[in-house]
Amino acid sequence: MNCNRELVAEIFERATFIRDLGIVVTGCDSGSCDTELQMRPPLQQQHGFLHAAVITAMADHTAGAAGATLMQAGQDVITVEFKVSFLRPAVGPLFACHARVLRAGKDLIFTEADVVGCTGRESPTKLLAKFCGTLKIIPHTYL
Amino acid sequence: MNCNRELVAEIFERATFIRDLGIVVTGCDSGSCDTELQMRPPLQQQHGFLHAAVITAMADHTAGAAGATLMQAGQDVITVEFKVSFLRPAVGPLFACHARVLRAGKDLIFTEADVVGCTGRESPTKLLAKFCGTLKIIPHTYL
Amino acid sequence: MNCNRELVAEIFERATFIRDLGIVVTGCDSGSCDTELQMRPPLQQQHGFLHAAVITAMADHTAGAAGATLMQAGQDVITVEFKVSFLRPAVGPLFACHARVLRAGKDLIFTEADVVGCTGRESPTKLLAKFCGTLKIIPHTYL
Amino acid sequence: MNCNRELVAEIFERATFIRDLGIVVTGCDSGSCDTELQMRPPLQQQHGFLHAAVITAMADHTAGAAGATLMQAGQDVITVEFKVSFLRPAVGPLFACHARVLRAGKDLIFTEADVVGCTGRESPTKLLAKFCGTLKIIPHTYL
Repeated sequence: MNCNRELVAEIFERATFIRDLGIVVTGCDSGSCDTELQMRPPLQQQHGFLHAAVITAMADHTAGAAGATLMQAGQDVITVEFKVSFLRPAVGPLFACHARVLRAGKDLIFTEADVVGCTGRESPTKLLAKFCGTLKIIPHTYL
Repeated sequence: MNCNRELVAEIFERATFIRDLGIVVTGCDSGSCDTELQMRPPLQQQHGFLHAAVITAMADHTAGAAGATLMQAGQDVITVEFKVSFLRPAVGPLFACHARVLRAGKDLIFTEADVVGCTGRESPTKLLAKFCGTLKIIPHTYL
Repeated sequence: MNCNRELVAEIFERATFIRDLGIVVTGCDSGSCDTELQMRPPLQQQHGFLHAAVITAMADHTAGAAGATLMQAGQDVITVEFKVSFLRPAVGPLFACHARVLRAGKDLIFTEADVVGCTGRESPTKLLAKFCGTLKIIPHTYL
Repeated sequence: MNCNRELVAEIFERATFIRDLGIVVTGCDSGSCDTELQMRPPLQQQHGFLHAAVITAMADHTAGAAGATLMQAGQDVITVEFKVSFLRPAVGPLFACHARVLRAGKDLIFTEADVVGCTGRESPTKLLAKFCGTLKIIPHTYL
């Protein structure tokens, strides 16, 4: 099975919102993708934790890229829906996301993603959020 | 029933990430909150639509504020989990979110939120995303 | 818009599991469906409430039927995923479900459903569960 | 860490609905539980597959039991919400579910569960459904 690295790169480069957040790809393989993000004050919610929507952005985009690794020429993916559970406060300073494809069907792709990080200074890395989502395969439009 | 407007204001003022996105409160009542957001290129994903995570940020934060309207002094809310379904491409130029509390229990609050907007130039306003989430009541920490 | 009542009837008649639970259709229109269920001891979980999976069966099947009302000849629907939130203990003695289509796309249908009932003897009818799910349009197979 | 086997046993014995479905515990440990179910015609939906609500019943109850393994004397669990994704048609003849606790907090428990089985005669065992849910810790009521 090949890994469509071009589409993964494009997904991260062309998504202004994700690039500005500072989410970077650290690896990808057929059916999986890994990303990292450094905590910065502009990404915080009112209690000083990483905002749930930033965690979601990281998980959703990494899951989309995991799906993208399996696409053939002319195919692209778009998010249909997801659920995210927030298990622990996301303190930082570094967050890592691993997403993988659970099932790639003819028109739908089921994914899951884990976001890990620290919950306090000098605490060990723990699972902070669990993401489970669905992608739809669409024709790739050259922007 | 009173409406805790101070907590709603604080939730939006102190969340750097939400403030920077440009999400503004347009109204709140006991158990509900309304917000608006203008489309800007930095908020787009790779197809030029509003990024799913921005839609999520808007829905999650508005739902949190809807829960906050019902809090008593010393209480605050935090997101436990949510599911978001993306019904149509979010083109803009203006997005509105209405969130409401479905059930406020002793320690958990169930919410839903609709995000509406246009799917193309001169198209009518349509439902773009449906959010359903759970909040937990926590002690309010004066930051 | 027509309402495909034949498919709705078939969905309930041919689903042995649903028929045995006692879920009955009380109405359907284009994009919506209503059902009812009487509490019986075999449907209870360990605390004596209606089991979450029975509530889910009711919501899922009614939502499927709401989608089915919009299908054309030769089309059928199947559940892709759903989320259900359990707001209050489901005591009975009568449960009613209203499901409606939020968006019917070319290949996916987004639905929501409310399950209402009593939470105790002589209590008023309240929202017991909120369902939000996705259906896929598939070819109808004549069994 | 102990494993509260008494509560797990009780959860399955006292839930009439689950017992009647034929779901049986095949193992449990601290923070996890395994169950099995044999396909029978009464458990089918209109296409002859295991009904989504039966898959949900299996996943939800096994996840509840996984949470129950961690409870102390006087504690019990109840389902707050879950999401289930249906990856493949559930043909049978045997279904197995493995549930595990992702995070056990002071008042909430986050769980996930996999349901595996065959998608056709002589096909290998595959992941059929993915469950992700939240439990609440409540006082145990001796029925």
